[in-house]
Amino acid sequence: MSSGSARYVALSGGIGGAKLSLGLARLLGERLSVIVNTGDDFEHLGLAISPDVDTTLYTLGGVVNAETGWGRVEETWSFMQATAELGGPTWFKLGDRDLATHVERTRRLAAGETLTGITQYLAEKLGIAARILPMAEEPVRTVVESDGGTLAFQEYFVRDQCRPVARSIRYEGAAKARPTRAVIAALSDPRLAGIVICPSNPWLSVDPILAVPGMREAMRASGAPVIAVTPIIGGKAVKGPTAKIMGELGLTPTAAAIARHYGTLLDGFMLDAQDEALAREIGVATVVTGTMMRSLDDKVALAEACLSFCDRLGKGGPAAARREEIEAAP
Amino acid sequence: MSSGSARYVALSGGIGGAKLSLGLARLLGERLSVIVNTGDDFEHLGLAISPDVDTTLYTLGGVVNAETGWGRVEETWSFMQATAELGGPTWFKLGDRDLATHVERTRRLAAGETLTGITQYLAEKLGIAARILPMAEEPVRTVVESDGGTLAFQEYFVRDQCRPVARSIRYEGAAKARPTRAVIAALSDPRLAGIVICPSNPWLSVDPILAVPGMREAMRASGAPVIAVTPIIGGKAVKGPTAKIMGELGLTPTAAAIARHYGTLLDGFMLDAQDEALAREIGVATVVTGTMMRSLDDKVALAEACLSFCDRLGKGGPAAARREEIEAAP
Repeated sequence: MSSGSARYVALSGGIGGAKLSLGLARLLGERLSVIVNTGDDFEHLGLAISPDVDTTLYTLGGVVNAETGWGRVEETWSFMQATAELGGPTWFKLGDRDLATHVERTRRLAAGETLTGITQYLAEKLGIAARILPMAEEPVRTVVESDGGTLAFQEYFVRDQCRPVARSIRYEGAAKARPTRAVIAALSDPRLAGIVICPSNPWLSVDPILAVPGMREAMRASGAPVIAVTPIIGGKAVKGPTAKIMGELGLTPTAAAIARHYGTLLDGFMLDAQDEALAREIGVATVVTGTMMRSLDDKVALAEACLSFCDRLGKGGPAAARREEIEAAP
Repeated sequence: MSSGSARYVALSGGIGGAKLSLGLARLLGERLSVIVNTGDDFEHLGLAISPDVDTTLYTLGGVVNAETGWGRVEETWSFMQATAELGGPTWFKLGDRDLATHVERTRRLAAGETLTGITQYLAEKLGIAARILPMAEEPVRTVVESDGGTLAFQEYFVRDQCRPVARSIRYEGAAKARPTRAVIAALSDPRLAGIVICPSNPWLSVDPILAVPGMREAMRASGAPVIAVTPIIGGKAVKGPTAKIMGELGLTPTAAAIARHYGTLLDGFMLDAQDEALAREIGVATVVTGTMMRSLDDKVALAEACLSFCDRLGKGGPAAARREEIEAAP
């Protein structure tokens, strides 16, 4: 196991990523920083909404709706009902308790606070020791080019329920974004012992983070091993449209294809016991384990496996050297 | 009774005014325009809140909380609880259903719609035939100078529960405000047969309307009789701080003092049966009747008395002539 001062960074999107982040947070507390995708963020009803940040906050704060994986537990829906009566848009479900987060965020952003500062504030209020770090302050907006036209992320994901066929995905604003100071601080902490890419959708949740200029470089410069946990088990996504999107982008939805997608960024890859046969197709070190997270124990066990894997890979070890070699090649 | 084409205008603040407006609306439907005080409006949690407009909307729309007189019936309070947990301000109570109104208004204002247009939209959604007209588009903000310092209206009224001693009251922004086009249209309608000043607090609810330059002039130019219904019965306010404020401003809290306050603006004054003895102190025509509105029947009966009174006074009649005389005097 990792030493008591070792720090870890997780890269995470929404539900699946938040589950592993919860396992990591139980083991690490304040020694964990979760860099969260903000490509899903949007303004709705005049409110600044950060779905992945909120799913992470609610999950780590113990107030998430465990059935859906998003939104708050013991939620009520009076606001949504009244909005419907007033003819307002209702395709994006905002619970009454959840709304307090959006109103508070919107108010504080308008007052000049940063998304990072607001998230830190909310995390403290929810009793979260881990640091939850939006990937950037600048707006990055995931856009899906589909057979139904150009769709803003939430239009594609929530309104259209991922039904349109994706042709390509881009991250508007990414070129002008920068990793926040808090993100850079987490990645350049000399105590950093590992970076875990959570089992989130690579195209919709992780790539927006990696698209922020300087993010990959900061990950590499850390010298810490980078591992990814597969979001695909037995050719299927645990949740969400990962497998569907892979098919639409011309990829076979397998754990091996996920590992290839991340390429030289990875030092290690964790695949599910179901997919053990694929281990040989994966060009980096692998760990085969149960990756399905149903219970809290599952989440903690997978988190433990991640930390052990990082330990085994070591810092600035052969994987990092190999990566430099590949990249230095003409 | 008034003829079937006659139009009426009411000037109203919050709870008491909305009650009489409801009675008038039952009798008049679309032939009623209610000019509503916006001096109570404020921004809170980043939301544009118009308390008197909303009380009027909810009362005439049949969704008001009858116990409190403000807010919505069958309300839930999850947003407020979650806001408290997040350390946000909770002194101004925002119910979950009520919040939909504020979010919709804020969103539409940000999109460039007018408060008048938004109010009209909300009124239609609530099935209200009467026109509910904010007094002005420009911000007017009632400010109370008190022994506790300068207080924004909602700080005085809600946060401090009217406890500070009022020294003076002013209407910031009023000088730059103008009656809206819809207000001017209602007051210059040739079918206008009467203007009713509802039993709202003169200093906190009606004077902000009258402080808008051009409002008094438009009322006078209409030639329609102006009547006021006393908000003071037996030396006490039915609700709210009217009597307390009158004492603090050096006035004896009586119906007669209310009539004197409105002065030459009035053609008629309705006082409660309890205060019949004061009729001789009131320098305009009076009607003595039951003015306490407990039931819907009470509200409709008082509204009927108002319309009959206006009919009796007539348009451009002796009262208007007398007023011109007084004002023409050197």
